[in-house]
Amino acid sequence: MQRVESEIARLIQEIDYDEVTHLFNMLSGGKRLRAKLVLKIAPEHESAPKLAAIIELIHAASLLHDDVIDESLTRRGVASVNATDGSKTAVMLGDVLYSKAFTELVDFDKDIAKVIAASVTALSKGEMMDVKMADTFNSDEKKYLDMLYLKTATLIEAASIASALLIGADSQKYGTYGRNLGLSFQIIDDILDITSDAATLGKPAMNDFVEGKCTLPYIHLYHALGEEDKVRLQNAHAKKLEAAEENWIKEMMQKHQCIEQSFALAQKLSNEAMLAVEDDKALVEILETMIKRSY
Amino acid sequence: MQRVESEIARLIQEIDYDEVTHLFNMLSGGKRLRAKLVLKIAPEHESAPKLAAIIELIHAASLLHDDVIDESLTRRGVASVNATDGSKTAVMLGDVLYSKAFTELVDFDKDIAKVIAASVTALSKGEMMDVKMADTFNSDEKKYLDMLYLKTATLIEAASIASALLIGADSQKYGTYGRNLGLSFQIIDDILDITSDAATLGKPAMNDFVEGKCTLPYIHLYHALGEEDKVRLQNAHAKKLEAAEENWIKEMMQKHQCIEQSFALAQKLSNEAMLAVEDDKALVEILETMIKRSY
Repeated sequence: MQRVESEIARLIQEIDYDEVTHLFNMLSGGKRLRAKLVLKIAPEHESAPKLAAIIELIHAASLLHDDVIDESLTRRGVASVNATDGSKTAVMLGDVLYSKAFTELVDFDKDIAKVIAASVTALSKGEMMDVKMADTFNSDEKKYLDMLYLKTATLIEAASIASALLIGADSQKYGTYGRNLGLSFQIIDDILDITSDAATLGKPAMNDFVEGKCTLPYIHLYHALGEEDKVRLQNAHAKKLEAAEENWIKEMMQKHQCIEQSFALAQKLSNEAMLAVEDDKALVEILETMIKRSY
Repeated sequence: MQRVESEIARLIQEIDYDEVTHLFNMLSGGKRLRAKLVLKIAPEHESAPKLAAIIELIHAASLLHDDVIDESLTRRGVASVNATDGSKTAVMLGDVLYSKAFTELVDFDKDIAKVIAASVTALSKGEMMDVKMADTFNSDEKKYLDMLYLKTATLIEAASIASALLIGADSQKYGTYGRNLGLSFQIIDDILDITSDAATLGKPAMNDFVEGKCTLPYIHLYHALGEEDKVRLQNAHAKKLEAAEENWIKEMMQKHQCIEQSFALAQKLSNEAMLAVEDDKALVEILETMIKRSY
């Protein structure tokens, strides 16, 4: 991973603007999940660190814009750029990082550049859908999963496919792995928003629902409830939750096993991902670590 | 140009999200200067309409984000997306357009894709500098022109270079043309902000200075003034202008021929552009139309 960090630093340096270097260095790098994937799929390839660095720049840019759009004041436990330097700076820094990443992507083969670039259109489209869907109570599971795929899974899927293409491996197999990893990762994230306490999350619990986002457990709950309770759930949507309503939702979710149901889907997707790459211990390990996160 | 419009419509359709199509169709297409340049430099090339469409998508994305950053409520005489649908929507739509453009750019030769992608990093960097420079009174002409080059001229320069590369023509010559066209275009725009009335501009006159932007005429004025008047000018910077101050600035600019001085630079740059492509009537015509705009 040191090679990836050096490569990221080099690309940022090449932008040749102190303001960008300064702001970028204030960001928390996060888990670098996407970079790790690239290095695990194409460990020997000399261009793997550069591909990984490009994907991390894209991911950082998307988070900068996400935080502007969701008005999030923290990111990975530290204040977000829009909180410290304003949303305009976050938009501009995101644009610089996106375009630098695309400029460097041109050095790769067309199929690699294309799959990564197209995934950015998909994730931007997914972000639009996410915001749009929060306007009303969405009870459509398929619609929710389609949005999740675009918003969270496509870049991980593209990182896996691009790495496989780099070494001439079966890109479909790795694509399945990345897509399912991304989806189950996000479903677990959605579960943690409900089951973890505010201190662990670094934000209020059940924040997704307050922001209007009907994640899987809420969709499952909706379908399990009777007519009257359906209305009660819908009335609690997209506003600050009273303690009584919060407790009621949690009780109902427990009664109807909504968390278990969502977790079962995450596990099913994760199993499919494992099957796709069962011979690859490093990739299976990433999945296992991620699933354990939810306990 | 009909081929470019069809190509733009096709690319938007390919994004396959009604929300994007709807929002994009609400935008005013503007003069399509960059697309015209591509068609005039590479009129016969079968990929010229696609290259032109890509560059117009990039330009549209940059304007969407610019309007968020500058909090502009109008664009090309119609309400901006951030005014009608909020700044979040404008950020997301811009991201979708940028990434779609980059995805399509991959189909071109590497040198073409690289020059266009790199110009987006330059323009995003230029936008950051523009905002940063508005914090204080900038009297440094070189610093101002460097920012202007990045923010306004690089995409036009890149469009010219890419079109020349498409047909195997002298990219340096066309690069000089595009760069100087872009610079002189923007200098004239800056002049019009001072000399036109609010009705013509569709925004308050001298709006640049109110927003903190010290364009060339202000920089020239600053250097022509005595110590006491320098302070008076600086004190008027980046705030709503009293009528008395507005009149005083205009009088002083007239006295010290600041508009003429700025216009002379625009003309010098434009002449250099003409020299670079003197055999090409269509390109010379674009320059002449642009210069005439200022009368």
